[in-house]
Amino acid sequence: MKKGILLVVSAPSAGGKGTILKELFRQDGNLRMSVSATTRQPRPGEENGKDYYFMSREEFQELVAGGRMLEHAEYVGNCYGTPREPVEEWLAQGLDVVLEIDVQGGAQIKRLAPDCVSVFITPPSMEVLEKRLRDRGTEDDETVRKRLAAAREELPHAEDYDYIVVNDRLEDAVEDMLAILRSEKRKYVRNPGFVQQVLNR
Amino acid sequence: MKKGILLVVSAPSAGGKGTILKELFRQDGNLRMSVSATTRQPRPGEENGKDYYFMSREEFQELVAGGRMLEHAEYVGNCYGTPREPVEEWLAQGLDVVLEIDVQGGAQIKRLAPDCVSVFITPPSMEVLEKRLRDRGTEDDETVRKRLAAAREELPHAEDYDYIVVNDRLEDAVEDMLAILRSEKRKYVRNPGFVQQVLNR
Repeated sequence: MKKGILLVVSAPSAGGKGTILKELFRQDGNLRMSVSATTRQPRPGEENGKDYYFMSREEFQELVAGGRMLEHAEYVGNCYGTPREPVEEWLAQGLDVVLEIDVQGGAQIKRLAPDCVSVFITPPSMEVLEKRLRDRGTEDDETVRKRLAAAREELPHAEDYDYIVVNDRLEDAVEDMLAILRSEKRKYVRNPGFVQQVLNR
Repeated sequence: MKKGILLVVSAPSAGGKGTILKELFRQDGNLRMSVSATTRQPRPGEENGKDYYFMSREEFQELVAGGRMLEHAEYVGNCYGTPREPVEEWLAQGLDVVLEIDVQGGAQIKRLAPDCVSVFITPPSMEVLEKRLRDRGTEDDETVRKRLAAAREELPHAEDYDYIVVNDRLEDAVEDMLAILRSEKRKYVRNPGFVQQVLNR
């Protein structure tokens, strides 16, 4: 059984990552979404092991100390991270696993999981990004300005990623993601014993 | 205009490269086939600039000496090589260019054109390769044995290539090649100025 691909995906604020991933999962049955661990309290309707792995700070710290978190960070007093074990299990079964991380995480994850494939999703232009934010109609001027400023800070982090996918037409972006997964599987370095198998059969 | 991709393709004897490339060209209008230069005499029906660039040994050596051949070799008294200029022109126009070379050439071309993408096409097994050779019905036992022996020598050169594509089902192999071209274009290193463009627009 060939090992799956760990696909790390990041996008700046309002980059449209959610829509692309939803369509990607619809088209590719071999994908799994990694589940984060958190020390915050479950909200009504949230399921342990599906939405998050809910755990105490002690349990969380133990995973970190044992090198059993792929990445982790703290936000407003709560810890969030990606337990390594479930991801490794899926990969060993030949499934590909998507890991969403924030745009600051690209360099970190490449150190911790060097054979991952990282994709940075970007809007085609700041103008389009602004238009999308305004068209939502849910954010006031101040919030739109803040999100645009955040995107300006976040976009240069693309350099830590293997691939850039432009979120212009949804179908193209999804096709790009599928092509990246497919071609990565054909890389010689991911198939070191293949030629010997051909020769033996 | 974004630069095209130089796609270097090799396959062991009877690897099925021709069939795959034919179908790839049918599906991808952005591809051009690089034309080799040779010092041998044109055969009836061969066209200069289409089948080969026919030239004298002096002209050929001049191109080699000037670093204007991407790769070159000598077979049975004639020189064969790939002139760099027409390839570079197509690439500059944003066209992707396929360059067929023999399996010994993989390491050489990576030195001379480091941003090329190289693909090694392999049969799924020696058994299948033998069956294909016999099913052709055009080769006698001795020739089949020679070709199989050659393939055994050639297969380990796959390690000098970026990707391995298995020639099992034709549609899958072609789909792999298309995915490789598509995903390579999304690589961050091939789009170094892209984020700045997004920020400026």
